[in-house]
Amino acid sequence: MELLYDERIDGEIADVDKSGLMAAILAVAPRLTLLDREEDLRPFECDGLSAYRVLPMLVAMPTTLAEVEALMRVCYEHAVPVVTRGAGTGLSGGALPLEKGVLLVMSRFNQILSVDPDARLARVQPGVRNLAISEAAAPHGLYYAPDPSSQIACSIGGNVAENAGGVHCLKYGLTVHNVLSVEIVTIEGERMTLGGESLDTPGYDLLALFMGSEGMLGVITEVTVRLLPKPEVAKVLMACFDDVERAGKAVGDIIAAGCIPGGLEMMDNLAIRAAEDFVHAGYPVDAQAILLCELDGVESDVQADCERVRQLLETAGATQIRLARDDAERQLFWAGRKAAFPAVGRMSPDYYCIDGTIPRRELPRVLKGINDLSAQYGLRVANVFHAGDGNLHPLILFDANQPGELESTETLGGRILELCVDAGGSITGEHGVGREKLNQMCTQFAADEITLFHAVKSAFDERRLLNPGKNIPTLARCAEFGAMHVHHGELPHPELPRF
Amino acid sequence: MELLYDERIDGEIADVDKSGLMAAILAVAPRLTLLDREEDLRPFECDGLSAYRVLPMLVAMPTTLAEVEALMRVCYEHAVPVVTRGAGTGLSGGALPLEKGVLLVMSRFNQILSVDPDARLARVQPGVRNLAISEAAAPHGLYYAPDPSSQIACSIGGNVAENAGGVHCLKYGLTVHNVLSVEIVTIEGERMTLGGESLDTPGYDLLALFMGSEGMLGVITEVTVRLLPKPEVAKVLMACFDDVERAGKAVGDIIAAGCIPGGLEMMDNLAIRAAEDFVHAGYPVDAQAILLCELDGVESDVQADCERVRQLLETAGATQIRLARDDAERQLFWAGRKAAFPAVGRMSPDYYCIDGTIPRRELPRVLKGINDLSAQYGLRVANVFHAGDGNLHPLILFDANQPGELESTETLGGRILELCVDAGGSITGEHGVGREKLNQMCTQFAADEITLFHAVKSAFDERRLLNPGKNIPTLARCAEFGAMHVHHGELPHPELPRF
Repeated sequence: MELLYDERIDGEIADVDKSGLMAAILAVAPRLTLLDREEDLRPFECDGLSAYRVLPMLVAMPTTLAEVEALMRVCYEHAVPVVTRGAGTGLSGGALPLEKGVLLVMSRFNQILSVDPDARLARVQPGVRNLAISEAAAPHGLYYAPDPSSQIACSIGGNVAENAGGVHCLKYGLTVHNVLSVEIVTIEGERMTLGGESLDTPGYDLLALFMGSEGMLGVITEVTVRLLPKPEVAKVLMACFDDVERAGKAVGDIIAAGCIPGGLEMMDNLAIRAAEDFVHAGYPVDAQAILLCELDGVESDVQADCERVRQLLETAGATQIRLARDDAERQLFWAGRKAAFPAVGRMSPDYYCIDGTIPRRELPRVLKGINDLSAQYGLRVANVFHAGDGNLHPLILFDANQPGELESTETLGGRILELCVDAGGSITGEHGVGREKLNQMCTQFAADEITLFHAVKSAFDERRLLNPGKNIPTLARCAEFGAMHVHHGELPHPELPRF
Repeated sequence: MELLYDERIDGEIADVDKSGLMAAILAVAPRLTLLDREEDLRPFECDGLSAYRVLPMLVAMPTTLAEVEALMRVCYEHAVPVVTRGAGTGLSGGALPLEKGVLLVMSRFNQILSVDPDARLARVQPGVRNLAISEAAAPHGLYYAPDPSSQIACSIGGNVAENAGGVHCLKYGLTVHNVLSVEIVTIEGERMTLGGESLDTPGYDLLALFMGSEGMLGVITEVTVRLLPKPEVAKVLMACFDDVERAGKAVGDIIAAGCIPGGLEMMDNLAIRAAEDFVHAGYPVDAQAILLCELDGVESDVQADCERVRQLLETAGATQIRLARDDAERQLFWAGRKAAFPAVGRMSPDYYCIDGTIPRRELPRVLKGINDLSAQYGLRVANVFHAGDGNLHPLILFDANQPGELESTETLGGRILELCVDAGGSITGEHGVGREKLNQMCTQFAADEITLFHAVKSAFDERRLLNPGKNIPTLARCAEFGAMHVHHGELPHPELPRF
């Protein structure tokens, strides 16, 4: 297989004549909003990963499909790279702008086009907020299942681009399991629909390929999502443990017993204390770990499942088990969990959120490994997990004003991700690779796999104009990083340089 | 986007020095079974679509991964095309050999490598039969959900290649929803694993892309499938209707009410009579349509769901509703459905099975359209559907000995598929495109979409050696066929030439 990578994705982009480009764009899309003054560009310099900031050359805020098509055609002709951005809540820097690129902001595509309760689907524009879809579907007793913590703010286009998850994706799947089709515009300005309402589509499954592709393959201009009926009842059990690994094992026990909770979350002592101090959710601050297990469905099932899970938790060594007494307390239990990130933020000048996944059975071992690494690097780590699906979010506490702490934090984060890969997991669960985890991709994948990724990218975007420098590292980067995944072998040395 | 299609996939393959090729293969894989005598090749001349037969140049039957890798390397070096075959039960000619190609038969890869009841997965070789996986998982109370009618014979590698469905895929998904990872060997002889046990993997979702790719992207050498717990109870309702369209509407009503049956199947009068005559399942031979609705889960739910579905069926105008009185009768109800194809075969010298999907709400309209087309072409059509997921299997009855009947049948089949596309559906539900539906792909997709498919193919197999002439038509073929999908426009003229 030929090496198809392109060094330019590391930043060597040709100079662009900005005023010429603007004139060319406005010639074909005269009403398109273009921003190029520094004070207008500043709000777009980063996404949710605020450690990295770049001012874009130009921001375009289209309101019509024709404007998107026209913009793409001009950028393609001028060989100007395009980074697409939704609400900008992403945590891996996927929407980080380029100084010599156009930032295409899709936030004005914010219409819910239709809700079809019979077919149980909604057609929406990409700038529609995740939660707004559920609100529009609520009168029909339906909702959109994937619920990232940022669901009040994040938009569905970004959810598709990152294949977002959430508390409920254990039972209801990731974004990929809840989207029926997307309309895209290619870098050449061609409109295309991937997927459809029917069960299966012939040809290659380009819809699945597109999900989570981080803006590298095309611009999303419409999304058709699946809606689900709201569960009749939901109950939450909170179980306390005096040992983190024991809590990890209980997670596996629940799943192995044939029970699929609506959500199954875990927090360790540091996260518990932070959340309790912030939200007063009623968490036991002396527990080493708590599990929150939500069971949803029809009344009779939920009753029976609660009883089974309670027994499993007792057998697993829970020191205390509490059923939320009413819906208010249930929501309070969740409020603590959902506020865990900002709560940890109150305990430390800075924190760095890791996003890795592991097979559930590896939870106890990986938890121990994280603990050992935390001690080794002298940095506190608060653990908040989507435990049911093995998606870890360790939060490393640090102080960027202390010389060397950011570097140590990044190194520790890399080590934790390598631990995940070593356990048969992966370097991202739901936050994506973006700009942040390019180096870790070298750990996860072998050279022939990365070459294949580049070849697939070429099928959509031969000139590499869509979101260059994200998601897939160049082989040159991996060589420089000194790490290339060795099948079934030793992990590479862990000294991660910054990018 | 550059035009990447290759005319050679229509059959213009360079001559091959067979003995030279065999010597080269045996030099690197001395114990590999190679067949080249006509009598040995004959059993491999077709798959389940027996209308098309080609003798392969050479059959290779490897038993080890090293043999597959070595074979691929030699074929790649000699630019010899490779068609991979599993059990050969496919219905669209996906495993049709090439006269100047190697047929790679994976049936000796027939080991179940492991069953892990805690992680609920099984690692199997591609030649393992679909049903054998469920048999191996049964001692743990688990099973593999997708159940194509050929499940006794078909192998999991072929299921992956065609993204097979079955009666239960309405509730439990297609093969794509039940496979966690595949190990493949590329045309260059490189081994690669796509997907994994963890929730999500970074980079592009090559596993999903590979599912249903019909042997065009690589050779499957191992599959890791998800296992599900066997439902506690299953019950079947049979509802009779004196009108086909009313039965079609009832299907939509059941789903819209929030009920997801384990299976929801429909047969029309011709299919009912054929099946009853063959299997004596107790079907009412004067009904214009019957629905079979299986509800599975825990006892209390199934009871409640049965009552709800019964009421919905009554409201929808069912003339008779029967609950299978015990498991024996339940299995008898299904036996009639599963034997519908051979049963129809007893009524007519030949039949031709169509496989299209439509959105459920279009069922009444499409059923009426099929009926009209049947009258127009003077050919009887028996309808057997996976109704719940809108997957139609109209069976056209004909006599190949009557001059012109095969041609009329093919034309009618093409018209029915175009009707599906027109209704927002697709030209295949679970049988794939293979050799059979290349022309209909021109109806389903626009030129830029087909070009994109070819570009994706190139990423895996630039020399187009894997299963050429299947799945994706050349643009030249579509131009000759005179049909290229027009977005939101009129369907092209329907005179389908044979290939």
